[in-house]
Amino acid sequence: MSVLKVGIPKGSLENATIELFKRSGWKIMVSSRSYFRTVDDDEVRCTLVRAQEMSRFVEMGTLDMGLTGKDWILENGSDVRVVQDLIYSKTSALPARWVLVVAEDSPIRTLKDLEGKKIFTELVNFTKRYFSERKIKIDVEFSWGATEGKVIEGLCDAIVEVTETGSTLRANKLRIVEELLQTNTQLIANHESYRDPWKREKIEQISLLLQGALRAEGMVGLKMNVSANELKSVMEILPSITAPTIANLFQSDWFSVETIISEKVVRELIPQLQKRGAVGIIEYPLNKVI
Amino acid sequence: MSVLKVGIPKGSLENATIELFKRSGWKIMVSSRSYFRTVDDDEVRCTLVRAQEMSRFVEMGTLDMGLTGKDWILENGSDVRVVQDLIYSKTSALPARWVLVVAEDSPIRTLKDLEGKKIFTELVNFTKRYFSERKIKIDVEFSWGATEGKVIEGLCDAIVEVTETGSTLRANKLRIVEELLQTNTQLIANHESYRDPWKREKIEQISLLLQGALRAEGMVGLKMNVSANELKSVMEILPSITAPTIANLFQSDWFSVETIISEKVVRELIPQLQKRGAVGIIEYPLNKVI
Amino acid sequence: MSVLKVGIPKGSLENATIELFKRSGWKIMVSSRSYFRTVDDDEVRCTLVRAQEMSRFVEMGTLDMGLTGKDWILENGSDVRVVQDLIYSKTSALPARWVLVVAEDSPIRTLKDLEGKKIFTELVNFTKRYFSERKIKIDVEFSWGATEGKVIEGLCDAIVEVTETGSTLRANKLRIVEELLQTNTQLIANHESYRDPWKREKIEQISLLLQGALRAEGMVGLKMNVSANELKSVMEILPSITAPTIANLFQSDWFSVETIISEKVVRELIPQLQKRGAVGIIEYPLNKVI
Amino acid sequence: MSVLKVGIPKGSLENATIELFKRSGWKIMVSSRSYFRTVDDDEVRCTLVRAQEMSRFVEMGTLDMGLTGKDWILENGSDVRVVQDLIYSKTSALPARWVLVVAEDSPIRTLKDLEGKKIFTELVNFTKRYFSERKIKIDVEFSWGATEGKVIEGLCDAIVEVTETGSTLRANKLRIVEELLQTNTQLIANHESYRDPWKREKIEQISLLLQGALRAEGMVGLKMNVSANELKSVMEILPSITAPTIANLFQSDWFSVETIISEKVVRELIPQLQKRGAVGIIEYPLNKVI
Amino acid sequence: MSVLKVGIPKGSLENATIELFKRSGWKIMVSSRSYFRTVDDDEVRCTLVRAQEMSRFVEMGTLDMGLTGKDWILENGSDVRVVQDLIYSKTSALPARWVLVVAEDSPIRTLKDLEGKKIFTELVNFTKRYFSERKIKIDVEFSWGATEGKVIEGLCDAIVEVTETGSTLRANKLRIVEELLQTNTQLIANHESYRDPWKREKIEQISLLLQGALRAEGMVGLKMNVSANELKSVMEILPSITAPTIANLFQSDWFSVETIISEKVVRELIPQLQKRGAVGIIEYPLNKVI
Amino acid sequence: MSVLKVGIPKGSLENATIELFKRSGWKIMVSSRSYFRTVDDDEVRCTLVRAQEMSRFVEMGTLDMGLTGKDWILENGSDVRVVQDLIYSKTSALPARWVLVVAEDSPIRTLKDLEGKKIFTELVNFTKRYFSERKIKIDVEFSWGATEGKVIEGLCDAIVEVTETGSTLRANKLRIVEELLQTNTQLIANHESYRDPWKREKIEQISLLLQGALRAEGMVGLKMNVSANELKSVMEILPSITAPTIANLFQSDWFSVETIISEKVVRELIPQLQKRGAVGIIEYPLNKVI
Repeated sequence: MSVLKVGIPKGSLENATIELFKRSGWKIMVSSRSYFRTVDDDEVRCTLVRAQEMSRFVEMGTLDMGLTGKDWILENGSDVRVVQDLIYSKTSALPARWVLVVAEDSPIRTLKDLEGKKIFTELVNFTKRYFSERKIKIDVEFSWGATEGKVIEGLCDAIVEVTETGSTLRANKLRIVEELLQTNTQLIANHESYRDPWKREKIEQISLLLQGALRAEGMVGLKMNVSANELKSVMEILPSITAPTIANLFQSDWFSVETIISEKVVRELIPQLQKRGAVGIIEYPLNKVI
Repeated sequence: MSVLKVGIPKGSLENATIELFKRSGWKIMVSSRSYFRTVDDDEVRCTLVRAQEMSRFVEMGTLDMGLTGKDWILENGSDVRVVQDLIYSKTSALPARWVLVVAEDSPIRTLKDLEGKKIFTELVNFTKRYFSERKIKIDVEFSWGATEGKVIEGLCDAIVEVTETGSTLRANKLRIVEELLQTNTQLIANHESYRDPWKREKIEQISLLLQGALRAEGMVGLKMNVSANELKSVMEILPSITAPTIANLFQSDWFSVETIISEKVVRELIPQLQKRGAVGIIEYPLNKVI
Repeated sequence: MSVLKVGIPKGSLENATIELFKRSGWKIMVSSRSYFRTVDDDEVRCTLVRAQEMSRFVEMGTLDMGLTGKDWILENGSDVRVVQDLIYSKTSALPARWVLVVAEDSPIRTLKDLEGKKIFTELVNFTKRYFSERKIKIDVEFSWGATEGKVIEGLCDAIVEVTETGSTLRANKLRIVEELLQTNTQLIANHESYRDPWKREKIEQISLLLQGALRAEGMVGLKMNVSANELKSVMEILPSITAPTIANLFQSDWFSVETIISEKVVRELIPQLQKRGAVGIIEYPLNKVI
Repeated sequence: MSVLKVGIPKGSLENATIELFKRSGWKIMVSSRSYFRTVDDDEVRCTLVRAQEMSRFVEMGTLDMGLTGKDWILENGSDVRVVQDLIYSKTSALPARWVLVVAEDSPIRTLKDLEGKKIFTELVNFTKRYFSERKIKIDVEFSWGATEGKVIEGLCDAIVEVTETGSTLRANKLRIVEELLQTNTQLIANHESYRDPWKREKIEQISLLLQGALRAEGMVGLKMNVSANELKSVMEILPSITAPTIANLFQSDWFSVETIISEKVVRELIPQLQKRGAVGIIEYPLNKVI
Repeated sequence: MSVLKVGIPKGSLENATIELFKRSGWKIMVSSRSYFRTVDDDEVRCTLVRAQEMSRFVEMGTLDMGLTGKDWILENGSDVRVVQDLIYSKTSALPARWVLVVAEDSPIRTLKDLEGKKIFTELVNFTKRYFSERKIKIDVEFSWGATEGKVIEGLCDAIVEVTETGSTLRANKLRIVEELLQTNTQLIANHESYRDPWKREKIEQISLLLQGALRAEGMVGLKMNVSANELKSVMEILPSITAPTIANLFQSDWFSVETIISEKVVRELIPQLQKRGAVGIIEYPLNKVI
Repeated sequence: MSVLKVGIPKGSLENATIELFKRSGWKIMVSSRSYFRTVDDDEVRCTLVRAQEMSRFVEMGTLDMGLTGKDWILENGSDVRVVQDLIYSKTSALPARWVLVVAEDSPIRTLKDLEGKKIFTELVNFTKRYFSERKIKIDVEFSWGATEGKVIEGLCDAIVEVTETGSTLRANKLRIVEELLQTNTQLIANHESYRDPWKREKIEQISLLLQGALRAEGMVGLKMNVSANELKSVMEILPSITAPTIANLFQSDWFSVETIISEKVVRELIPQLQKRGAVGIIEYPLNKVI
């Protein structure tokens, strides 16, 4: 039987990814031995791999596809096919950014001021390339985690570090000099695997359902009853991600109106719908939106 | 841009409140510095405030609106506008009650028996007022938490303490002499803020959606297919919070019947619906019921 | 007022059971004293009882009904009425099995090889019966938990132990010689209680709703819009657990199609539905499917 | 090489026992696989065994010696050699007692009142013997833990349960009818092993050092300087577990007095020593007292 | 029998206090019911009381003696006898200080700048007295914990709060305007109890042993062998908290020198002792130094 | 004032190191901001640095001295002065070893078999050097943690990984082909700092006291009384790390004998001492042995 070898990112994205697969229709189970993961699909074999190493294993074909950050694909310079961007994260909706950071009171104001300096980062190759493209000579050293602490304690002049809101940096009296890269999770595939028809179809299936589950995260179903007189007025303000479903109610001139909308607009929309005569408004959760 | 300053109760109600706002459409995020809370609405600024102090800050206008217990509004004697009662709580559905408590074997049987005695409580002002209105002279001392322990260990004769079921009191061999106050969460606003049209509309929007989310908590959607013959019999027993939505099914004399009902009656209703011929009965969850 | 005395299994199944009752419509609350459980139905009194002892208490009428494993009912040899099988468990969907286990390198290959040996197990009576029916003489000793350790450390030759996937056994270099019993949770009732009309109706009500909640666990609602042209093609591949609900859309030749399907087929079905022209496909969660 | 097979009680006594062995001079290490324990003495092999099962394994020679409670030795009716009583426990210094317990308001006042009743206990054989010796007919059933709950919830009339202070029983409104057995940890040996000279010496060595460590637990060293004039007065009140060590101080008529005393008398002794002229009194901790 | 009623501070000092009593010779045990504490001295009855309320209960005679902070004694204005200062704390050796705190960028520089302002604090009475003695009019409001947050979030202009190192304040961008009070734990007694000879002797006994245990915390025993030639040189640098104990060694011209010194000087002293010829230097821990 | 910049290893050795410094006489405190550590010696400034990066910072003079593993010093190829080996670790007394590991059933038996293969390790430079010295060509890739998992899951053929007992490797069905390096903690200094007289003396002071505390870990004091007749016999078997201290007892022909011995021999020695007539044998703990 054909099997697709799928890499799941170990570490900070692990639980969010397993949760996403669950909502997409695949249960990935923790088995008794710590390195294996069982999945309820005989055509899929899941392996936990560090996000930093994922693209290397996909490139060499040890894995057919994997989920990992754009940052680590670039760092490894891996030649893989990016099938799809997947925008999800642990806590916030903000994209993660790799930024050049110095102490609040550092004289360094622009990238040029770093000429001849030493920088610590986990993203060594990417950072070297970034500065060499801008013809600035710097010395980039690999940092084993706790990178922020190195600037805070004065062990070095600058670091390249990942952040979402930047608020931890500010609280630690650090300053962002420049943003070098925005990153997000990507679904990548090995080129050869992607050319294989069976594997490609399987990858596309997973990709479609992951997208469906991700889209549902920010959406809800809204259902309400509207009289024939008010129907037009209500329809005017309903956003149309998918066209609303309108059905006649039995033996009456009322309609049942149902639509799928972004959760973010609900709080603005509901007061307006109520003013325009919609009654019995309910909101219900969704699992997937294709 | 206009901003509404909202007080969120710190402590035991904090998580339940943040969860309620989330279901209502506002995400309140824990940021890296412990005293701030970010919310995904630029028109709202959230501040964590102890429930005990909330009404004082709303009264003096430091906050435009806040959520806190009726008990602490009374204790502070704050002159604020009560916009809405919000019945929700950490664990149970029972209202919290402030009760006068003595040891099981105490000779005190009525409020009168407390004449000249010393009472410990966190609700000093309210308790003083309560007894003075009944012309009973007592000495009320402020208790720094662990109030129950003071009667249990014989450090005092009586306390005024909050309880839900009273079962902890009974387990500690304490006896309730009288209930002084039932309390629940209230949404309060500063008088001046409530007169400002923009602020008032914003407060009303939040109030509407909080109510919608709270109402959905105890309700579910029920959907079933019913033949033309059975429709009347089924409709007779369907509760009508909002009128059921009835739709003809395609090329048949069956109907799809859908309604919103209290979760509490579902367990009684489903066996009856089945007996009256409803088929394909499903129950689905709701986020909001307006 | 009539009251049904219900036994809830204490221990590993406790939380899953309380969660199942909640989804079925009964809230079982942890009260302040550890042995009691309050339930929001005055006609029901819940008692926490060890799964091992449940059937004994149901048999002697101390409880009217209870939930427990088939294995312990057999072990106790209790004469009770099995009302219904309830297939749910803590972690996996695999049935729990009681198996005879030896060390990987043990010479024991068949049950016969155990003639005259000593076996440790928590299921003493069942195991004695099992071997005596097969006319194999063995000495069965009660094991106080940690049964696996006894074979691992060489304290005995064989054990009878419960397992789901067998992977922990393999990881500990143990080998399954034979499966003795598959078990699952059962809803049992006292014979006399089941003859009482009021108690029987109450038991059946609980049974119906537990089943409804269990069935909903693996199912979802699927809704989509389909044009008149594509309707037949789409209907062909829709599984029909309950007949799909098809409704005309207002002033158009499109239809709204809604159905309840097993969560397991969704990941296969959605790509096909999309190919056959279904649009606006959404999946939503269910609480109960009757 | 000769090896002594030693059983360490698994469960509530496990950590206290490992700690005691450590203070006695043997480090028992948790290894990566959960059922084995490594000890830094090639002549000893440690096995974790439930206290309830220990004496059975020592009796049949699977283990040479073990530590377990007197209660479980009696329950199993094991024929083993009791080498030594070891008085130590998890929390308190009170001996554990197995008591017959009923509800506070039960009519049962004496053992005789139990005639014909059903009793739940984990100590089935011991309890049966105890009542049969007193010619009282009762039905004793095995209880799978949570025994107290069975009386509290009215599932049975009486239990035989272990307690130290009895305060949990009182808090749960239970009443002790009679104490059946006082128990403590005992070091037991297999009869044959104890006849083997090498094994016996090894058992005696372990026994001696366990005792030394246990004795040191309640004792401290006390050292002080005393002038020649006060020496007699000070010596009068010094307890003499081992004779005090008195040494002349260099070029003076003062003495250094050092003694080992029970920690319990220190708080009474120090004020008196100070009054009688002892100066520079210090107390220091001990690891072992032989 | 006579009993001394002793108050133990509940909360942050609770564990440190129980630990101190243990080292002093009294074991205070956690019993099964949460408000009681048992102590292994029939002449003592321990009660857990909030530090804030301790002096009130000692003043009114509900307790004979108690341990609490000087700050809360002053806040309550209690008329009690201070028997002894006890310098110990949870984490550091620094005294706790109540300080007036404002935001880093506040215009408030001196106490005078607070004229007419509102201050939040848990130490209301003390703060009022402090400012009124300096003839500065301010409005002091009671703060229910989380006091720092109120300045950080701009809910008020200044607070009076307790701190040890001030580093948390600095990290939160707050500034100390003035220190109002240094505080430490004090052993206090009710005046009448202290006049009773039996109670007074018991209080003095506890006080002596608490002091002995506290002193031992920062001290160690140091023992070394020194030749006759080097004795004088070594003695010159030995600190003399209590006079060193010097003893002739058997059949040699060497001496054993033993002394009690502050742990803080050990790291400086040992290198010097080694240079002056001391050999076999060992350091050992102490339980008590009287 | 002069200050010595000391690097403390962050991570798995952090707590053990802080505990060791505490026993040596320096309290390193956790301050409120996570990257700083305060120490109670104004001449020392502590910085938390990952063990992997320590030697780089010591080499470039950012730190004067540091504690880290020999493995990481070799990996970084840092030119630093090794002042002292410090044998201590988190759990066991076994030295950590870097070993070449393959799957149990791999055909790889010797280093030569790795010719042309890919190896994953955290110790890239050291591993490259090791194989190149042996003229074996391999491809070494950096592994981001979870290295074992890579062989277990078949992502690569071999890894170089650190282990103590090797038991986890065996449990995961892995096999050690060869040991490449034994490692332990070392105290290293910057060459220039070590030439500075003040810094060197400070480094030597810290080194002396760390050694004293480490040595005391495995040693205890033993004290006993011996009669003149038995003295010679007892002295014969006393190990002599430092010469025993023998003192005449007052007005008797008994002697007090005191010695410092390895904790490991105590359990053998005490039974023998007892046989030779020593009485009142006590063992007490030590803080430091210089």
